[in-house]
Amino acid sequence: MRQPAGRSARRTGGERKPREERWVELIDVATQVFYEKGYDGASLQDIADRLGMLKGSLYYYIQSKEDLLFDVISAVHKEGLAVVRARAEVPGGPLERLESVIVGHVEHTCRNLVPTAVFLHELSSLPEERRREILGSEHAYQGVFRDLIEKAQAEGLVRADLEPRLAALSVLGSTNWVYRWFRPGGAFTPEQIGSELAEMSIRGIATAEGLAQRGA
Amino acid sequence: MRQPAGRSARRTGGERKPREERWVELIDVATQVFYEKGYDGASLQDIADRLGMLKGSLYYYIQSKEDLLFDVISAVHKEGLAVVRARAEVPGGPLERLESVIVGHVEHTCRNLVPTAVFLHELSSLPEERRREILGSEHAYQGVFRDLIEKAQAEGLVRADLEPRLAALSVLGSTNWVYRWFRPGGAFTPEQIGSELAEMSIRGIATAEGLAQRGA
Repeated sequence: MRQPAGRSARRTGGERKPREERWVELIDVATQVFYEKGYDGASLQDIADRLGMLKGSLYYYIQSKEDLLFDVISAVHKEGLAVVRARAEVPGGPLERLESVIVGHVEHTCRNLVPTAVFLHELSSLPEERRREILGSEHAYQGVFRDLIEKAQAEGLVRADLEPRLAALSVLGSTNWVYRWFRPGGAFTPEQIGSELAEMSIRGIATAEGLAQRGA
Repeated sequence: MRQPAGRSARRTGGERKPREERWVELIDVATQVFYEKGYDGASLQDIADRLGMLKGSLYYYIQSKEDLLFDVISAVHKEGLAVVRARAEVPGGPLERLESVIVGHVEHTCRNLVPTAVFLHELSSLPEERRREILGSEHAYQGVFRDLIEKAQAEGLVRADLEPRLAALSVLGSTNWVYRWFRPGGAFTPEQIGSELAEMSIRGIATAEGLAQRGA
């Protein structure tokens, strides 16, 4: 992720907020405005108004509306990727780790509905090059799921006839889709959804041996 | 679906195209333009230009851009719903029918990527009332999946502890997601994707008895 202009600059001691705090606030407000109006419909003026700033002051942090979208999407992608990577690296069997990755991904999505919606709806508003910069040339996010599926397959825990990429896309579809239907305070908690979707995903791909090991 | 103004009117015999044909063409072109520019970014002028019509002539078919989006989304939703309903009604066990519904849904999505993307991205651009008119108050599409899961559960073929709505949303997520990654001529055919996603979905929710019956 690019550093915002001035992000590393000195703090002011007086009534002005520190720049880091202002930056976090800017990203939050921009996320909300992009969500409500869509990227095309949102203007830097809307965002400045909501922050109680002059539009010109935004240029202290960013150079364009596209920069801001890039930063908003980078932030949620980076955070989600950190969640799944941390869970993928915990010692344990690959199927067990995959299950934990799915739960973490679903809970993160449920708790970040607005930034996730902006990520999934507006990624295509960024030029190809910046999209690749976020996703990584190897689709880092999808890769976490695919790697664990391949490892489990090598150990005979996932069906040998399954294409790991197709399996990863199926799991990602089932779990990403949550952003469209989850409602906080609704019939299901994030924990419940995470655990049920993980259960369905694991059963969907595992061999009898994989399921037996898990039950043990 | 509303009837377009003039849809039932007389045909002209001369060089002008019949109205039904013009209507189908209008829906196709509008779908493409909404896909490329987004609903907010697209204008009736863009659509008229691409059809080689005067903008004023569009009002013979529709009253507003919103009408056109409604008709585009209704058309793809109605067609997809007809596909899954037809497969759900074929005689057979509920799990077998669910499998066929999933295959049909995936293949329909792969073959209608552009209208599906407009449906999924722009549904929220319609006012609540028109969204409900399309989806049905009971979410007709989701209902086809949920009903079969409930029937299979009642027969002991789907795990008793599974929430049918959550299971339906998991299957719909895995299968709808295809619109984001499927590329015609890519590594996987629509048939292959349909059959693999159905396999994972059924294994994800079935009991040992359900899987055994299926294998028989």
